[in-house]
Amino acid sequence: MKQFLFVLSLLFALQLSAQTDSEVLDKIYTTSLKEGKSYSWLDHLSNQIGSRLSGSLGAELAVAYTKEELDKLGLDKVWLQPVMVPKWVRGAPEFAYIETSPGKTTSVNICALGGSVATPNAGVKAEVIEVKSIDELDKLGKDKIAGKIVFFNRPMQADAIRTFDAYSGAVDQRSSGAREAVKYGAVAVIVRSMNLRLDNFPHTGNTGYGDLPPSKHIPAAAISTNDAEVLSGMLSLNKDIKFFFRQNCKQLKDVQSYNVIGEIKGSEFPNEYIVVGGHLDSWDLGDGSHDDGAGCVQSMDVLRVLKKIGYKPKRTLRVVLFMNEENGLRGGTEYAKVAKEKGENHIFALESDSGGFTPRGFSFDTSDETFVTKAQQWKPLFEPYLVHQFVKGYGGADIGPLKNDTIVLAGFVSDSQRYFDYHHAKIDAFDAINKRELELGTATMASMIYLIDKYGTN
Amino acid sequence: MKQFLFVLSLLFALQLSAQTDSEVLDKIYTTSLKEGKSYSWLDHLSNQIGSRLSGSLGAELAVAYTKEELDKLGLDKVWLQPVMVPKWVRGAPEFAYIETSPGKTTSVNICALGGSVATPNAGVKAEVIEVKSIDELDKLGKDKIAGKIVFFNRPMQADAIRTFDAYSGAVDQRSSGAREAVKYGAVAVIVRSMNLRLDNFPHTGNTGYGDLPPSKHIPAAAISTNDAEVLSGMLSLNKDIKFFFRQNCKQLKDVQSYNVIGEIKGSEFPNEYIVVGGHLDSWDLGDGSHDDGAGCVQSMDVLRVLKKIGYKPKRTLRVVLFMNEENGLRGGTEYAKVAKEKGENHIFALESDSGGFTPRGFSFDTSDETFVTKAQQWKPLFEPYLVHQFVKGYGGADIGPLKNDTIVLAGFVSDSQRYFDYHHAKIDAFDAINKRELELGTATMASMIYLIDKYGTN
Repeated sequence: MKQFLFVLSLLFALQLSAQTDSEVLDKIYTTSLKEGKSYSWLDHLSNQIGSRLSGSLGAELAVAYTKEELDKLGLDKVWLQPVMVPKWVRGAPEFAYIETSPGKTTSVNICALGGSVATPNAGVKAEVIEVKSIDELDKLGKDKIAGKIVFFNRPMQADAIRTFDAYSGAVDQRSSGAREAVKYGAVAVIVRSMNLRLDNFPHTGNTGYGDLPPSKHIPAAAISTNDAEVLSGMLSLNKDIKFFFRQNCKQLKDVQSYNVIGEIKGSEFPNEYIVVGGHLDSWDLGDGSHDDGAGCVQSMDVLRVLKKIGYKPKRTLRVVLFMNEENGLRGGTEYAKVAKEKGENHIFALESDSGGFTPRGFSFDTSDETFVTKAQQWKPLFEPYLVHQFVKGYGGADIGPLKNDTIVLAGFVSDSQRYFDYHHAKIDAFDAINKRELELGTATMASMIYLIDKYGTN
Repeated sequence: MKQFLFVLSLLFALQLSAQTDSEVLDKIYTTSLKEGKSYSWLDHLSNQIGSRLSGSLGAELAVAYTKEELDKLGLDKVWLQPVMVPKWVRGAPEFAYIETSPGKTTSVNICALGGSVATPNAGVKAEVIEVKSIDELDKLGKDKIAGKIVFFNRPMQADAIRTFDAYSGAVDQRSSGAREAVKYGAVAVIVRSMNLRLDNFPHTGNTGYGDLPPSKHIPAAAISTNDAEVLSGMLSLNKDIKFFFRQNCKQLKDVQSYNVIGEIKGSEFPNEYIVVGGHLDSWDLGDGSHDDGAGCVQSMDVLRVLKKIGYKPKRTLRVVLFMNEENGLRGGTEYAKVAKEKGENHIFALESDSGGFTPRGFSFDTSDETFVTKAQQWKPLFEPYLVHQFVKGYGGADIGPLKNDTIVLAGFVSDSQRYFDYHHAKIDAFDAINKRELELGTATMASMIYLIDKYGTN
């Protein structure tokens, strides 16, 4: 019986190799849409485990769960790669209000930014100075800023077509607003949430103090876009209003965590590595379904789907679920370090970290100018699946440390219009996931991995 | 002052004519995303008015509201075009259960199909025969079917990439299942909802009895996909289970309604008409935000945005909000009839009726084979907006009656993955609308209308 099954699987593999690429892609898409596992994996990750901030119990459970699921797939090897990660905890829910006159207050929705220090136990209350940029801060100087709460309120640019461009154009307020405001004696910063919609949800995300000594760290929080509008409106009527907030967040000691890795050994070029991955950690407010549970389950399903259709890779395929993208990038850094130490020749790494939305294509980060042209020749293969973007651009944070002269880094590009509605907010939750969109993403990624494995990157 | 404003607007118009197409498109997209009105119009239509089934109070209010809003835009002419429409009412909420043995029942979610007759007051209860197709019905014949409820349970095809293809491949069960089942003596039909997801919402939609005399009409209802799975599972265990349902729907006499039309007269070719539209009626379960409130407000905003950027059309541009697409197509039919009577030369009609999702492109229905090639030459103009589909295909139901040898009918194509989650169900509601996706659609449509006006269709 075993021999019979062996012959059968051999025949299956031979049959596959006789297929055209377009037939293989058809098989990949059909399998993803009819027998995909990504949605049910994500259901578990989001609804049974929940948020997965580095160092949290959720992150630990997610490591165990995804390893267990990869173990079931019959890959050649599944293992955990140890990595020490920072542990930041939010503590008790934040509380904030605008005080228009003593005793007259309006509550607003805020959340501590990741990495921020707490306010004093009694909170912080001060006058507010609204700025649109760090430049403006510099122009105002110490006179206008000292003793105040700086309110960064430059909205994401509504007419950027790719919302990631709008994000890049605004996120400096969140990532470095606090450390810049300190220079002028600010007591705290409040940042308009990185969100293109007007709603009530504050969006967290990392902030950094750079080289400032801990004694100089000031608390930083995000305010919902609706409340940013309210605060700005009140300030335009009365510059003397005060803002109060309280948060208990804390940076603890680093703790042990892991990247989760699964591998199918290549039959012809086992030391040529092709990586597909996402990051297993998430922020703590939602359950991280889009950021980046989606990318993780899609990456897992890429290997599963290729196996299911009987594809035997020539090169070694690895799924890597990176730990700690959000507030440290320790997982990506460690993975690249170990790969280098072991002399593993990584030729291609694909990251899915832009949400589980309808796939639009790929952006390639490579010093090999000819590769993008080569990839564009595959466009007709993807046309039936409405995947049309094959451009030079960003790869991904976790795969970034793998960059060298020869590797091609690739970012999976999905429709970005809704991404920042959910990103780092409590509504980044499973009900914002559409099964088909997620599965089409899996198929698109698996198709690219198949083509890279078959034809290489040169 | 008036003269000054006139000169100013003249200068503005001259300036626009000196712009490249890509500059004009940039202006259109920016205006839509930063100063669009479609979202707030839809908010009113959905949340203040609600569902708009032909002949209902909602439909009447929607006619008045959209006319009033068009009146405010300063178009050259706004008017109502009278059309008699069918009036079907759902009556009291439907009720249904599966009876596995006397007294042992499981409630299920159903809704009457549009146009269906009621059950007897006491409901209908009978054994169930499950079929996957009308063909299968024909094969089973009278012996197996007479006296039973026919349960059509062929799912929409999960691996169709364009969900409208999956819809076309399954909707015969809903639209003609009842009249086919009658031939073999069925007492009623239950149809699996046209929905690619598994959930609890029944999806309504039209069913027709063809030439059958009223005495032969049998009640027809949709069952949610989850409950279709339950019913099918129970039937596989026990063929003798019974299904009960009760519905009070009724076809009343035709009533007066209207298409809502607004127009900007063409400066060079006033008798060449370019139409952009959607249908103002909706089904009654949700508020019809995607189907087709979105298409209506986008079409209205197309004229508003073009006016706002100072564009003076050479041809006559019309926005048409058609009445009664869902259950009669009387509005589309009447509009085409009047256009013909008046000798209006319609050269292009664009319909948006696939939901307010991220735009992907256009499908063109024309006997002029060269037009699609011409339109494809505009692709580079749309590339910055990630709009990439310019294909031969379907135009739209409401504009269909305009078809002749010279007109180009065009369907606005948006991302279709989520459309059938909402379509004709109570969750087709405003919270399923993303502002940016809606506005990007408006801009994409306005850009096409601009190009057609400028260059014609030949």
